[in-house]
Amino acid sequence: MQATSVNTDFKEPAVREPGHKMILLVEDDPDHEALAMRALRKANVANEITVARDGAEAIDYMTAAAAGSKPMPQLILLDLKLPKVEGLDVLRSIRAADKTAIIPVVVLTSSDEERDIVSSYRLGVNSYIRKPVNFTDFAEATKQLGMYWLLLNQCPPNQ
Amino acid sequence: MQATSVNTDFKEPAVREPGHKMILLVEDDPDHEALAMRALRKANVANEITVARDGAEAIDYMTAAAAGSKPMPQLILLDLKLPKVEGLDVLRSIRAADKTAIIPVVVLTSSDEERDIVSSYRLGVNSYIRKPVNFTDFAEATKQLGMYWLLLNQCPPNQ
Repeated sequence: MQATSVNTDFKEPAVREPGHKMILLVEDDPDHEALAMRALRKANVANEITVARDGAEAIDYMTAAAAGSKPMPQLILLDLKLPKVEGLDVLRSIRAADKTAIIPVVVLTSSDEERDIVSSYRLGVNSYIRKPVNFTDFAEATKQLGMYWLLLNQCPPNQ
Repeated sequence: MQATSVNTDFKEPAVREPGHKMILLVEDDPDHEALAMRALRKANVANEITVARDGAEAIDYMTAAAAGSKPMPQLILLDLKLPKVEGLDVLRSIRAADKTAIIPVVVLTSSDEERDIVSSYRLGVNSYIRKPVNFTDFAEATKQLGMYWLLLNQCPPNQ
């Protein structure tokens, strides 16, 4: 399945105007996707949110973005337990490519296993957030992280 | 000058109880130090804040922490323009040592030069924040980042 751009009410140019902010949400759980989308829209931090529903889709999207045929996200929210290619391998692939190496990646996962936390940081994740079990807390955490990364943090310029 | 531990109303053991959260603030401007300290205390996210007032002090502190003779911070806030050793070299030193390589480091600086932003990310900074010029906004930004990193983010366990 192709990565799904949710705001598709216009023809999609690969290069956006300055200030255009895009999030790539890598999430296979439809409930979590819906919750995160709603929370990020409420926070009003991005003009566009694209969803990749497995690890292979995420890598395909980022390969296209590096080639200039898709818009480069300013933030990637990455689940770890993903079909096809697991999240840590997606992270490794993003960090290995020069054009995507420094894009902020936040792991957002149900896992609180120490090895996942340590592996994520060792592979160069910017931040690791455990999904709160409660849906209200999950939405609030997603909103907070969207605001932190797209309003407070200075994202790197496109390379 | 030695790195200054601000909460020094007890004898300092090198190993803290679980849940003890410490911030290392690397900042040479006394006004910014005072503002950041007040904001972080208000946010009530850390039990202890230690200040290093130049880059050499910061490296000395982290070398001692890696050796187990000082508590390991859960978060490092790092100015870039520092006396003695500049911030990017402090960051390089932290990332090069195995025991400190994955500690979250947030650059908090007046610089909005693209080369500083890109160099910081390439050296593995977790987040880059421009100090707001207005003091109220500076305090609010510091509080927000303290809350993000110590309440929402899952810090790596001590290595």
